[in-house]
Amino acid sequence: MTDTPSERTEQAEHAGQAEHAEQGAGAVGAPSRRSVLGWGGAGLALGAAAAGGAVAVARSDDDPQPAAAGAGAAVAFHGAHQAGIATPVQDRLHFAAFDVRTDDRAVFVQLLKDWTEAARRLTAGQAVGEGAYGGPVEAPPDDTGEALGLKPSRLTLTIGFGPSLFEKFDLADRRPEALIDLPKFAGDNLDRDRSGGDLCVQACADDPQVAVHAIRNLARIGFGKVVIRWSQLGFGKTSSTTPDAQTPRNLMGFKDGTRNIAGTETDRLKKFVWVGETDTDDDSAWMTGGSYLVARRIRMNIETWDRTSLQEQEDVFGRDKGEGAPVGRAKERDEPFLKAMKPDAHVRLAHPDTNAGATLLRRGYSFTDGTDGLGRLDAGLFFLAYQRDVRKGFVPVQRSLAADSLNEYIQHVGSAVFAIPPGVRDADDWWGRALFSEEA
Amino acid sequence: MTDTPSERTEQAEHAGQAEHAEQGAGAVGAPSRRSVLGWGGAGLALGAAAAGGAVAVARSDDDPQPAAAGAGAAVAFHGAHQAGIATPVQDRLHFAAFDVRTDDRAVFVQLLKDWTEAARRLTAGQAVGEGAYGGPVEAPPDDTGEALGLKPSRLTLTIGFGPSLFEKFDLADRRPEALIDLPKFAGDNLDRDRSGGDLCVQACADDPQVAVHAIRNLARIGFGKVVIRWSQLGFGKTSSTTPDAQTPRNLMGFKDGTRNIAGTETDRLKKFVWVGETDTDDDSAWMTGGSYLVARRIRMNIETWDRTSLQEQEDVFGRDKGEGAPVGRAKERDEPFLKAMKPDAHVRLAHPDTNAGATLLRRGYSFTDGTDGLGRLDAGLFFLAYQRDVRKGFVPVQRSLAADSLNEYIQHVGSAVFAIPPGVRDADDWWGRALFSEEA
Repeated sequence: MTDTPSERTEQAEHAGQAEHAEQGAGAVGAPSRRSVLGWGGAGLALGAAAAGGAVAVARSDDDPQPAAAGAGAAVAFHGAHQAGIATPVQDRLHFAAFDVRTDDRAVFVQLLKDWTEAARRLTAGQAVGEGAYGGPVEAPPDDTGEALGLKPSRLTLTIGFGPSLFEKFDLADRRPEALIDLPKFAGDNLDRDRSGGDLCVQACADDPQVAVHAIRNLARIGFGKVVIRWSQLGFGKTSSTTPDAQTPRNLMGFKDGTRNIAGTETDRLKKFVWVGETDTDDDSAWMTGGSYLVARRIRMNIETWDRTSLQEQEDVFGRDKGEGAPVGRAKERDEPFLKAMKPDAHVRLAHPDTNAGATLLRRGYSFTDGTDGLGRLDAGLFFLAYQRDVRKGFVPVQRSLAADSLNEYIQHVGSAVFAIPPGVRDADDWWGRALFSEEA
Repeated sequence: MTDTPSERTEQAEHAGQAEHAEQGAGAVGAPSRRSVLGWGGAGLALGAAAAGGAVAVARSDDDPQPAAAGAGAAVAFHGAHQAGIATPVQDRLHFAAFDVRTDDRAVFVQLLKDWTEAARRLTAGQAVGEGAYGGPVEAPPDDTGEALGLKPSRLTLTIGFGPSLFEKFDLADRRPEALIDLPKFAGDNLDRDRSGGDLCVQACADDPQVAVHAIRNLARIGFGKVVIRWSQLGFGKTSSTTPDAQTPRNLMGFKDGTRNIAGTETDRLKKFVWVGETDTDDDSAWMTGGSYLVARRIRMNIETWDRTSLQEQEDVFGRDKGEGAPVGRAKERDEPFLKAMKPDAHVRLAHPDTNAGATLLRRGYSFTDGTDGLGRLDAGLFFLAYQRDVRKGFVPVQRSLAADSLNEYIQHVGSAVFAIPPGVRDADDWWGRALFSEEA
């Protein structure tokens, strides 16, 4: 067998990632934590070679994918905020909600540490532990191997804690008030098997195999302690968080998320996305620098929509279909004149001006999960929105959308809400440390 | 609204596509057929501008995707063989099996013509008909629009005819003998809802949204005449049909398909893939230049595999995991020494030497369709294999694999077989013409 040098962490290219890039490059290049993974007999400490910057087994530098250079780079893992929120949206998603199957806090804390170490490696384009073929042959490999030879592909892994987690570990007093249980909204038709979860991990990457590999290996590390409750693949991003990129189209063929918060807009991120010191008290101070995530699986009645006239489609959105310009305007990014739209137009009802300024950072993906039993595509939008306070973000917007004419063509079939802790600061930090450490 | 110039068809870059590229470029640039699509009131002929080479509504040239230049190109639609077989494997798949809901042969023939015209446009990076916003506002748009702004992304659309289609249209005498009903194989656990189909369309592209868009629009054109029976998304190619590319890994972390037939190997394609004149009689002469496709949905018991020792994993495949070299050899492409492998090793049992030379052109994709009810990934390999005669290709190989030690970790849960007619020759030709034309 051949040892290959570790994939080098490339600097994140976007300005919005500067903070991550700076802190991350050093940590990845010279990890000070040892990789002691918690399953089987295969969890062995990394040797001196790893500590010196060369990892015994990592993805090969040979790249069979025709991806552009930028798409292959690594996004740094360490930072004040978790990556995967303000990070320019990657092309693909694998999102998993987990249920916790242990009530032993020490076991769970060890899992969070193991996951953090794995995430640190995976996002740098390295294999988990000793890799897919570097360990003892009589044990299962530490890494499942299907990402060998693939680039980091801008993989980000973002963890969240669901309301039920706080009950499980007797942390009810540390549950932030902003982490509400979502109310029932008009038109909700939620599938319990696609809703909720004690934990979530959002994996975004430009190569779906890299995102799937990451979730699979985290699930594997968590075997016996956590189990995947539901998961969702997304294949087409539906929002842009880069100000100059063209807004992607959803499966209704419309541009959506034109006025999204860009990852470079520090002021708007601070105002609408990041939990600030003034938002927390002693019990919830661990959330400072974090955010809240609402995930909704929105099924589109594709076949009905496709038989709807262009006029009706444009009225429903309040935009024209080609350019994406608001009603009466010429260009996509022209300021919308809401009163020119029908009262039940989607853009009008979702607009901050209609909702006392409520603004979300959207990071949704299109999905197509084959066909239902009736020959119709099981397709739609997996809506992901980050916000500073769910009560001032998703809740008022979704209440306003009760009157949305779009509701004739969509249905919310899955729902979850998670507290997204702040970023992992350095090689000694781990996901959720401030919440779970006694001394915090 | 803004009219955008049509996406220009770029020449396919690979030598194996030369035939397609030559014939395709002219036909796409100056279509001689009119777009008369058969649904609603929206089917209008393309105007003079289209005949002159400028299409009124097509995908914009603005490209929000960070894909490499090569990945955005068009693969020509016209040729002696259908594209999507010898074409270098694209990154993503959307495969759909359809059932026919009409017994009116004229209606079905018109659908094949409409589909052909749509496929000609879609593979060139153009919208269907008058596009997503170019038609009358009181009618549904001809195109659903979600691929606006995306490149052709090497989209190929490949049609196939299932055994049941020949019954439906009283064509039993024209059904080729090589299009057998697959026998039951040891270990089969087939789900009827993921098997069979009167028709199939394989959509491959480097952008999944482009592949999904194509299938969706074909399904829409077929509304009331055909219905999707099942469909499958694939996100990671598992075979290479380019001789110099690194072999991709399947979800077991192993390189698979190392000795696949390359699209440039004219002799092996002729010997193992394309139906020749000597293979057909008067009734089946319409298949000359075609091929046969076997599709199998192979679920992997991922969690069991991941708890298996490296030694066992390597014994099962008969390769090492890192390099992919056959047992006792140093490099992936070294000639395997079959007797050095265990008698039940996968590579040994699948090898042509074990099966009287039987050789398949594989074009499979990995899939992950969320989670089953038990927290396990519903993941595996969507196996697609093209061959000149199923009786001399898939059948002997799969019979040999009854003894495969890999069977402990996989299960075949879906199965279908299709006759793949030859390519569409020019702008006047259409999918299945030789089979359905009276004069053929």
